[in-house]
Amino acid sequence: MDRRKMLGLAGAGAIGAAAAGVAGATLIDGATHPAQAADAGAAIPFYGEHQAGIVTPAQDRLHFVAFDVITDKKAELLDLLEKWTMAAARMTSGRDAGSIGAVNGAQEAAPDDTGEAIGLPPSGLTLTIGFGPTLFRTAEGKDRFGIADRRPAALADLPRFAKDALKPEISGGDICIQACAHDPQVAVHAVRNLARIGFGVVSVRWTQLGFGRTSSTSRGQVTARNLFGFKDGTANLKAEDTQLLKEQLWVQPGDGAEWMTGGSYVVTRKIRMLIETWDRTSLGEQEAIIGRTKGEGAPHGGKAEFDLPRFDAKGADGEPLIAADAHVRLSHPDANDGARLLRRGYNFVDGSDGLGRLDAGLFFIAYQRDPRRQFVPVQTRLARQDTLNEYIRHVSSGLFACPPGIRAADDYWGRALFA
Amino acid sequence: MDRRKMLGLAGAGAIGAAAAGVAGATLIDGATHPAQAADAGAAIPFYGEHQAGIVTPAQDRLHFVAFDVITDKKAELLDLLEKWTMAAARMTSGRDAGSIGAVNGAQEAAPDDTGEAIGLPPSGLTLTIGFGPTLFRTAEGKDRFGIADRRPAALADLPRFAKDALKPEISGGDICIQACAHDPQVAVHAVRNLARIGFGVVSVRWTQLGFGRTSSTSRGQVTARNLFGFKDGTANLKAEDTQLLKEQLWVQPGDGAEWMTGGSYVVTRKIRMLIETWDRTSLGEQEAIIGRTKGEGAPHGGKAEFDLPRFDAKGADGEPLIAADAHVRLSHPDANDGARLLRRGYNFVDGSDGLGRLDAGLFFIAYQRDPRRQFVPVQTRLARQDTLNEYIRHVSSGLFACPPGIRAADDYWGRALFA
Repeated sequence: MDRRKMLGLAGAGAIGAAAAGVAGATLIDGATHPAQAADAGAAIPFYGEHQAGIVTPAQDRLHFVAFDVITDKKAELLDLLEKWTMAAARMTSGRDAGSIGAVNGAQEAAPDDTGEAIGLPPSGLTLTIGFGPTLFRTAEGKDRFGIADRRPAALADLPRFAKDALKPEISGGDICIQACAHDPQVAVHAVRNLARIGFGVVSVRWTQLGFGRTSSTSRGQVTARNLFGFKDGTANLKAEDTQLLKEQLWVQPGDGAEWMTGGSYVVTRKIRMLIETWDRTSLGEQEAIIGRTKGEGAPHGGKAEFDLPRFDAKGADGEPLIAADAHVRLSHPDANDGARLLRRGYNFVDGSDGLGRLDAGLFFIAYQRDPRRQFVPVQTRLARQDTLNEYIRHVSSGLFACPPGIRAADDYWGRALFA
Repeated sequence: MDRRKMLGLAGAGAIGAAAAGVAGATLIDGATHPAQAADAGAAIPFYGEHQAGIVTPAQDRLHFVAFDVITDKKAELLDLLEKWTMAAARMTSGRDAGSIGAVNGAQEAAPDDTGEAIGLPPSGLTLTIGFGPTLFRTAEGKDRFGIADRRPAALADLPRFAKDALKPEISGGDICIQACAHDPQVAVHAVRNLARIGFGVVSVRWTQLGFGRTSSTSRGQVTARNLFGFKDGTANLKAEDTQLLKEQLWVQPGDGAEWMTGGSYVVTRKIRMLIETWDRTSLGEQEAIIGRTKGEGAPHGGKAEFDLPRFDAKGADGEPLIAADAHVRLSHPDANDGARLLRRGYNFVDGSDGLGRLDAGLFFIAYQRDPRRQFVPVQTRLARQDTLNEYIRHVSSGLFACPPGIRAADDYWGRALFA
């Protein structure tokens, strides 16, 4: 029984019809707008070769959580991973987190579900798990669960980058779960119930809410804007790039750590934007720093957003049209041995900073086959040379190994890792 | 030129059509779902007898900001209020914050708009301003702007309530602006641009993001759920209650402070929910504390959500079906000399609290004709007797006088106050 049927609101057909109603929101050019995604109410399959929430067309809302594992008992952790997998399969299909739902249990017991998503459709919810370096060996060097030798080489601790201003309390974590959905209440409900199920085994280390997904992950999506006001993710890896995804996104057989084959590595960076400073910068300087126009998002010297940047093009003054230190140049695969990332970041506003400014920016999320050859060299270059650094601060960092998808109902998150 | 036309994406007709596409999302029973409101892309008129954003059917996202005024010069403040009014009229209709938009200005100048809403429809944005007690006289007793004698008696400082755990840095403020919209990017864009325009005159004191509006303000809306998993706002004052709105919501001629006639007073309370504790409470106890069933939201002894609570009904054991200290009883108009509120609160999650728990709850917003006869007595009773207090903490508080609406293009926020 799904959340709606339970309350007698609708049968499956009617839910489909309601979802289709929401889905009518394609824009004039046929591409879907971030806040009006096609089929925003529908469910995204949980089972598959890869985890959902990676190449899935980026939903509009994020609730990301990093947990510390607070038990040393492997059996307790495995039990939780099995319970989590079951709850994730249920919630992503629009059901309560457990079989005793929010309102159908005994009066004497706490329900298996907290109830705030009653009546809401699945809303494109995906739940994507990742395992951090400290799950394999704690910061103190302890191999709590006997898996230190299964740590993939690609899950190497990130180096310290120039200008990093990381806060340890909102960085790292033993396990992450990325919840994405078209309705924040559904994403929040999912994380809250996973935390509830994990009581006594895991503890919430940090969480991040996001909105207005930047970085389309599908050619069917309009490129959204970050809080600098620029389109973000025009040149992102996309679901349709089948061959590139093999090369750049999914761990392949022989990459080492066979349990990760079909998985991917995710890097998260909370990037505070000094938006008050940016907002007083001239349009021309903003566009020079990014290397694209603000309105259309075209690379300088081009006309349209998806025109390829011509890095050798020069203006009448003999200067390159795209500056030597423009963000689009420094981050481009041409400057990074072809390295690409599948980004699915979100804008955030976390209130104010106590100094009269909004605490706002980009929660950067990037999936890749091997951070040592992708995120690390790209970010090393950006941290040293990007003029954008005057307007941003990296305040948190995370790195997690996201295993392949769950293919059978008796499988669970992490089984191959711990087998 | 609106944000879409500027980019040549669509003419007005096409925008209407796109908005209508979004609007298709009525539920099976004909009521609109919070996340799928009718006409979610459309504009809400800025001009009118009352400010929009009060009885306007509650949009699904909130960005609330409280500013400190950092100038002592009345002329600077009035100039800002005039600029703000103009920008608010533009943004609520889907245009850039200023005439020199994000991308149509000179290369040498910072734009009048920050750009992150380019291409987004108006999204039901409303901007509602209020003036706090400290605008009339600072905490140090200074009458900076010569308006101390215009402070309405109804804008009396709230008393300290039992169990208050208020943090001063996220309480109070000289001016508040409530931005509500169906797209958080649009609400965030509005507040960010108002803060930008106010540079040097005001400083952001605190802000709050919210989602999943609780408390419908119109009979056409489904009652949404708070993070306790219960429907919230079933008995709310609603836009259709014309006579009650006169009695309970809008300041009437002769109430004192004539500049407030047609306005309303807003109280905000950030209510942290101890959701981990709540989630381990039995369903029966949760329902007893609230006084309603969790699934349907019916008062005990009733069958349906909108059945009137029968406070005198007793069970077979002779005990009242609705407990003496149930939330629905203590907060009901019958227990409070008929006092009612127009609530339009939002759920929030602000990350984690550093103790392994989600920092989540309800950002309570309530409009009323006179807090001394409405919010204050109700909250006094709740703070003393409500069992729900074991699961909540009031951590911030705000009180603001929201003037009537802007009726002419040459009028501006606060003109009557300062006249």
